[in-house]
Amino acid sequence: MTKGVKIVTIGGGSSYTPELMEGFIRRYDELPIREIWLVDIEAGKEKLEIVGEMAQRMWDASPYDVKVRLTIDRREALKDADFVTTQFRVGQLNARVKDERIPLSYGMIGQETNGAGGIFKALRTIPVILSIVEDMKELCPDAWLVNFANPSGMVTDAIIRYGKWEKVIGLCNVPVMAMMEEPKLIGKTTDELVYSFAGINHFHWHRVQDLEGNDVTSQIIDKLYEEENGTPANIFDVAYFKEQLKQMNLIPCGYHRYYYRYDEMLNHMLEEYNDPNIGTRAQQVKQTEAELFELYKDPNLHDKPEQLTKRGGAYYSDAACETIASIYANKNTQIVVSTKNNGAVPDLAPDDVVEVSAYIGAAGARPIAFGSFEPAEKGWLQLMKSMELCVEKAAVTGDYGVLLQAFIINPLIPSGETAKRVLDELLLAHKEYLPQFAEKIEELETAEVIIKDEIARNLN
Amino acid sequence: MTKGVKIVTIGGGSSYTPELMEGFIRRYDELPIREIWLVDIEAGKEKLEIVGEMAQRMWDASPYDVKVRLTIDRREALKDADFVTTQFRVGQLNARVKDERIPLSYGMIGQETNGAGGIFKALRTIPVILSIVEDMKELCPDAWLVNFANPSGMVTDAIIRYGKWEKVIGLCNVPVMAMMEEPKLIGKTTDELVYSFAGINHFHWHRVQDLEGNDVTSQIIDKLYEEENGTPANIFDVAYFKEQLKQMNLIPCGYHRYYYRYDEMLNHMLEEYNDPNIGTRAQQVKQTEAELFELYKDPNLHDKPEQLTKRGGAYYSDAACETIASIYANKNTQIVVSTKNNGAVPDLAPDDVVEVSAYIGAAGARPIAFGSFEPAEKGWLQLMKSMELCVEKAAVTGDYGVLLQAFIINPLIPSGETAKRVLDELLLAHKEYLPQFAEKIEELETAEVIIKDEIARNLN
Amino acid sequence: MTKGVKIVTIGGGSSYTPELMEGFIRRYDELPIREIWLVDIEAGKEKLEIVGEMAQRMWDASPYDVKVRLTIDRREALKDADFVTTQFRVGQLNARVKDERIPLSYGMIGQETNGAGGIFKALRTIPVILSIVEDMKELCPDAWLVNFANPSGMVTDAIIRYGKWEKVIGLCNVPVMAMMEEPKLIGKTTDELVYSFAGINHFHWHRVQDLEGNDVTSQIIDKLYEEENGTPANIFDVAYFKEQLKQMNLIPCGYHRYYYRYDEMLNHMLEEYNDPNIGTRAQQVKQTEAELFELYKDPNLHDKPEQLTKRGGAYYSDAACETIASIYANKNTQIVVSTKNNGAVPDLAPDDVVEVSAYIGAAGARPIAFGSFEPAEKGWLQLMKSMELCVEKAAVTGDYGVLLQAFIINPLIPSGETAKRVLDELLLAHKEYLPQFAEKIEELETAEVIIKDEIARNLN
Amino acid sequence: MTKGVKIVTIGGGSSYTPELMEGFIRRYDELPIREIWLVDIEAGKEKLEIVGEMAQRMWDASPYDVKVRLTIDRREALKDADFVTTQFRVGQLNARVKDERIPLSYGMIGQETNGAGGIFKALRTIPVILSIVEDMKELCPDAWLVNFANPSGMVTDAIIRYGKWEKVIGLCNVPVMAMMEEPKLIGKTTDELVYSFAGINHFHWHRVQDLEGNDVTSQIIDKLYEEENGTPANIFDVAYFKEQLKQMNLIPCGYHRYYYRYDEMLNHMLEEYNDPNIGTRAQQVKQTEAELFELYKDPNLHDKPEQLTKRGGAYYSDAACETIASIYANKNTQIVVSTKNNGAVPDLAPDDVVEVSAYIGAAGARPIAFGSFEPAEKGWLQLMKSMELCVEKAAVTGDYGVLLQAFIINPLIPSGETAKRVLDELLLAHKEYLPQFAEKIEELETAEVIIKDEIARNLN
Repeated sequence: MTKGVKIVTIGGGSSYTPELMEGFIRRYDELPIREIWLVDIEAGKEKLEIVGEMAQRMWDASPYDVKVRLTIDRREALKDADFVTTQFRVGQLNARVKDERIPLSYGMIGQETNGAGGIFKALRTIPVILSIVEDMKELCPDAWLVNFANPSGMVTDAIIRYGKWEKVIGLCNVPVMAMMEEPKLIGKTTDELVYSFAGINHFHWHRVQDLEGNDVTSQIIDKLYEEENGTPANIFDVAYFKEQLKQMNLIPCGYHRYYYRYDEMLNHMLEEYNDPNIGTRAQQVKQTEAELFELYKDPNLHDKPEQLTKRGGAYYSDAACETIASIYANKNTQIVVSTKNNGAVPDLAPDDVVEVSAYIGAAGARPIAFGSFEPAEKGWLQLMKSMELCVEKAAVTGDYGVLLQAFIINPLIPSGETAKRVLDELLLAHKEYLPQFAEKIEELETAEVIIKDEIARNLN
Repeated sequence: MTKGVKIVTIGGGSSYTPELMEGFIRRYDELPIREIWLVDIEAGKEKLEIVGEMAQRMWDASPYDVKVRLTIDRREALKDADFVTTQFRVGQLNARVKDERIPLSYGMIGQETNGAGGIFKALRTIPVILSIVEDMKELCPDAWLVNFANPSGMVTDAIIRYGKWEKVIGLCNVPVMAMMEEPKLIGKTTDELVYSFAGINHFHWHRVQDLEGNDVTSQIIDKLYEEENGTPANIFDVAYFKEQLKQMNLIPCGYHRYYYRYDEMLNHMLEEYNDPNIGTRAQQVKQTEAELFELYKDPNLHDKPEQLTKRGGAYYSDAACETIASIYANKNTQIVVSTKNNGAVPDLAPDDVVEVSAYIGAAGARPIAFGSFEPAEKGWLQLMKSMELCVEKAAVTGDYGVLLQAFIINPLIPSGETAKRVLDELLLAHKEYLPQFAEKIEELETAEVIIKDEIARNLN
Repeated sequence: MTKGVKIVTIGGGSSYTPELMEGFIRRYDELPIREIWLVDIEAGKEKLEIVGEMAQRMWDASPYDVKVRLTIDRREALKDADFVTTQFRVGQLNARVKDERIPLSYGMIGQETNGAGGIFKALRTIPVILSIVEDMKELCPDAWLVNFANPSGMVTDAIIRYGKWEKVIGLCNVPVMAMMEEPKLIGKTTDELVYSFAGINHFHWHRVQDLEGNDVTSQIIDKLYEEENGTPANIFDVAYFKEQLKQMNLIPCGYHRYYYRYDEMLNHMLEEYNDPNIGTRAQQVKQTEAELFELYKDPNLHDKPEQLTKRGGAYYSDAACETIASIYANKNTQIVVSTKNNGAVPDLAPDDVVEVSAYIGAAGARPIAFGSFEPAEKGWLQLMKSMELCVEKAAVTGDYGVLLQAFIINPLIPSGETAKRVLDELLLAHKEYLPQFAEKIEELETAEVIIKDEIARNLN
Repeated sequence: MTKGVKIVTIGGGSSYTPELMEGFIRRYDELPIREIWLVDIEAGKEKLEIVGEMAQRMWDASPYDVKVRLTIDRREALKDADFVTTQFRVGQLNARVKDERIPLSYGMIGQETNGAGGIFKALRTIPVILSIVEDMKELCPDAWLVNFANPSGMVTDAIIRYGKWEKVIGLCNVPVMAMMEEPKLIGKTTDELVYSFAGINHFHWHRVQDLEGNDVTSQIIDKLYEEENGTPANIFDVAYFKEQLKQMNLIPCGYHRYYYRYDEMLNHMLEEYNDPNIGTRAQQVKQTEAELFELYKDPNLHDKPEQLTKRGGAYYSDAACETIASIYANKNTQIVVSTKNNGAVPDLAPDDVVEVSAYIGAAGARPIAFGSFEPAEKGWLQLMKSMELCVEKAAVTGDYGVLLQAFIINPLIPSGETAKRVLDELLLAHKEYLPQFAEKIEELETAEVIIKDEIARNLN
């Protein structure tokens, strides 16, 4: 890295890219970048060019001489990379719309990370990330992979488990937001508290201590029931049961709402789904994205626009930039990341990927050992990790049975004939991105007429 | 035991007692009983007398001189007992009716073992069984406790974990039935197959080998989809997904239907619930029981009547008699029981109670080590054990928060406001049997008017 | 197996073979053997013929028509075998003499199972057994492998771990002898007690209960200090510390003497080593064997001679015959065997081979879950298993570093320069049987002159 | 802590105290101390006064106004303490002389931390530390306990396990020294490397990475065999086997010499023991200490004297001061400490105390998850932890059997009659500090005449 750092961003045409640029510009002193390669696929070429030009304008407006390169040749970009970030979306937002709407059309949560939709996102993403890893082994074997392609936990786990690539860190913005909002509730700043997170992506809990070492988790929980709290923009804000939180003396992440308040979350999603003026989250994002790209086209714009913050993934890119800078400069910053467990969460296997508070430095993520959970949290966590393992196996092998097992075990999917139908419809809908299931999909297509009949019969 | 074995049956007034007697009579040669004490409570005195006289008639018609004693003084009965069996039902069938109907009135499965109903059955039963254990420590410290009070797994676990009583074996008839029916599917007898069960009560799987040591599980699964299979009388017979069973290469127990085919089971239960001519399982059982007691009154009846077999718990008592005889005569019979894990199911803690194939002899149950499960089964099992642990803790401490956690984690209870309402209503409905929750129930009663209003508002 | 069972015994020229025949003859009714193939290597041809003729005479004197076939073509013999037993000794007794004498020449225990000698026995045996397994996969893929080649634990573990062959059971006569001798101490028969063994080969403990389910381990321990106890013929009889046994409330196997009474065992072995009239165990056995073969030559002998019992491995073959008969006839006999843990010993990994009480039947060995050990036993066991794993890895890879680790961790080998010298000398001494270490041995040979100088310098 | 920090040092009369003062003076800006209480016992009063006056002189020569208070009233001192450090030595150096010399008189290593001597040090120290913890619960329940009384690992483990006191950190200077010396070997500074330690006190390993994230452990190992390496002053410098280190790809701590090079260490210790001009380590330290106290008496000395560095525990106090400052100022410094595992070392139980790299801040020590070890290291570690657990239990209960188990399992003590004799002699020698063993000691005294006879007989 003597001549400066080479960064490669796969899925570079994303609307997040300007946020990433802003993060890099802000950290240039500790992370002297030489060049940034934005990679996308043929179908995303137009967006790549819009956002690429915007990115170059941002650097040009900065004091630093950094070249932004745009390409659809992934291998060209990866050659000798120092850091590779992945933020691509197989099938783009249209696929996510299907992930959400098909389950909802059967009255089922189709959420993009842990629900039926998330499962399919994993099925589409894991084979692609594994092929990227194969390229990296050849073209940049010493590079770090910083993943924020969702579902970030399963994707990171598959990279290590099936890709046998250890230099990877998975990121998520959910913990960042909690650590920014919660301290205010008890009149503190983030620096005045010690946060300990443990669990898996979108399914973790944290406890908080003050600078005297006292546990203040309970105090924060009390305040959560007095004041407004900071849930991520993409999670509907229904309160947890206070008795539950006091019993666990831990604060769940926003995504626990789907599990702890299933009914309300489902109803809310169905409402949005049924309201043509709102639509599912993916549809809302699609609208926002379209607006963002309009803004990016403005040749005079060289700052990240305000609207991006509302996008839902705020701080995502910031976490990525900070992670990269921490590795590069051995900063030992404390960040919550997806990384190999190594025992940090003793209720899961040492080889599982977990999401935990970790110190990030030259050696990558060094997870802080959290200790065992009490039964309820432990049971949830072990169930969810099992679900993830089934999904990963299905993604790699194309085994329909194990995919069905993932659907049945997933607490957001009421098991039964309808669940199986949703699964089959999603397979058909995402056909072009699921080559590993080609045989099963063909079989389903052959039976389609019959299925459609049955659906009709059952739904009437 | 030189003068013959003393057996004490708590809940002796149960309609099952004649089956128990039949089992003991059949095994008298290897289990020389001196006297049998049937114990019940004041409220069950009438039934106790009917069934007690029937029991004595059965012995009198046998070649053996055994005295059946009836009492409502538990401590008198327990003195110097060799074996204590527990088959009592706190709150009797009426309580079970509430366990089932209250959840169903909110569209929720109120099943008596793993569902909301089962949770409340555990809350009522565990404190009573722990007080029996305290009496046993004093009055018959060397006796074996053979439990078939449901939910048998949680009750047995609580006896060891909280009662610190190790000489206990928990029983269930579900595995017996599987082993009687399945072999026929592949043209074999039970003796021609080797069965390995593992899991927890009403949540276990098994694999089967033939006498050449070949796994024939897959072969049985195939046959299950060709022919009629033997589900317990109290489980509605909806088929599992064949792809799922083939993937796991294990056969689930009948109760897995609630988890693997949630929708269909719920719909079926709601249908029965809504049909005044059918009613829930408890209501059906109540009807059967009334008929049975009419039969028992007949002074000329001294044989177990045919109708008892349809009762749903067939072979329950037979398993109990065989267990007792196996301990007494060190028979090393293979029986599936609830017992301390000791590693047999490595995915759970060595101290957890599990339900596994075991050899029963003088040393009690010696569980056969089954080995680790694959992810899906492992995740389910760990979740369910966590749920059990929350329920047991709630039963012992009266902690509302941990009870709420049990409800939320239970896959048969969709979480949210309605779940909490069902929980509160069940607390109120079972008030007299839940002294450990007295304070919370009082608080709920105070708020009752408001609650009722809310319920009305929400349901309309 | 319609036409009767085919048994193949590798190392058929062993002096044990007649005991094996006796066991089969006694069990013919439940184990209808068609033919027995005795396999040996070219160098063992003469012994094979002597013992083979003796074996045939034994069958001819029985009421059964069984053909004993002799061959040095292993593959011919394995074709369609039902059971394969392995009792061969790579390098024969001469190799064992070296295993014992080289360590002792440096003042170190050179014992044939857990000590330096046992490590080298494993290095020689494991590659051969793995090649047998490869043949079996091809020629008799449904056969059971019953191993009593020592060190039986490591060999069995390697068969499963590296050979990926699950149908194997490892045997040892040590538990048999304990169960035959101990009951007498408290005036009982074996049938009147329940034995639970757990640990690894030559390193297990057991507890004992009577038919009332009471633990009588402590009672037996007390008696051990009053009367003579039954240690195997090949273990010098020094008493354990009573305080230690009372603390653990378990009875160790005879081989624990090497670990619990290191000093005394070492001194005893050195005494025998230095006494030209006694010699090490291998030398004693060699003498006994020579005598046995003289007897076997007698064309009129068709019974197992008395002298065989003194051989040291008494009951070994009986255990093997009983195991085979139990599998064949699904007898569910309780035998202590080396088999895959599956959780039976929760302090070791589910995939480790352990030696435990098990029920043997058509499905092979079904280990009884023993539960966790207390710290001292747990620590010993985990250490010894780690030692085994290092040895197995060395045997398979020829990695000198991991072999050195095994030596250093082995509690019978005081670590340091001398230990390393013993290791190197053993490598040189067994050169022809350790092709996996060819490179290292060559290196050592080159340096031999220097080494010899150093040895001379150090020993003076 | 508004008025400044109150520090209490138990064993304040130690020769280390000036180093501690120096460390506090250097850190005054981040750790504003109000007062320091040096506590000792009646017998140590003279030393306390000498070192206490020296300590006050050091502060008086600094720019800070800190009062050093001397007392033999522990409870007076503990009142409202913020930090308590423990560096006392029950029985002082004379006891350590016995710890070392008695075993050596029987040809056995009597080392003060893991050997027979260390076991007895633990037996003397644990009851005292537990009584301190009881005082703290009453007098300063929010204080942190920073222990460097040896054996630091067992003492810290006992504080949490038996004292139920979680706010404790155990320290040791061994890792500090490795991190100061090793980097030089490869031309780096400590800041240019990432160190990961895991294991237990005086029995840990570490791996090292550079700032590119590459593992450089192997490179350091190579250099260790080329150049001088930095072993602690109190460990004789015999090299490890290079093949072993390369195989593990970890660097052991200096104390592993006792286990990996037993022979050489024993010989070296026997040489020193037998040389009247050298003596055991304790005797050497005693000499050094006497010289130090002479220096401390000089009323003009107000700086830590040079000679203290040679004392053997260099950097010990510095680690303590840095730990306290890191907690107080939430510095998140990386220090290797003894702390509750919480999964950081998955091969041990989550509740065991381990010694690992940790980040120290307001929440105490947050251990970095290290992951599983390979078999050899894993086995050693599990064995040693088991040994520790036996010792702790013996210290708390006075159970002779479990103490004997600790001796037998300890790899530095060849088991047998002699080991038991050493144990008994040590019990007698330390009689006044081992009230928990009063009964056993009395029994031994009664038998003493007989014992002496036996010893004579056996040694001749």
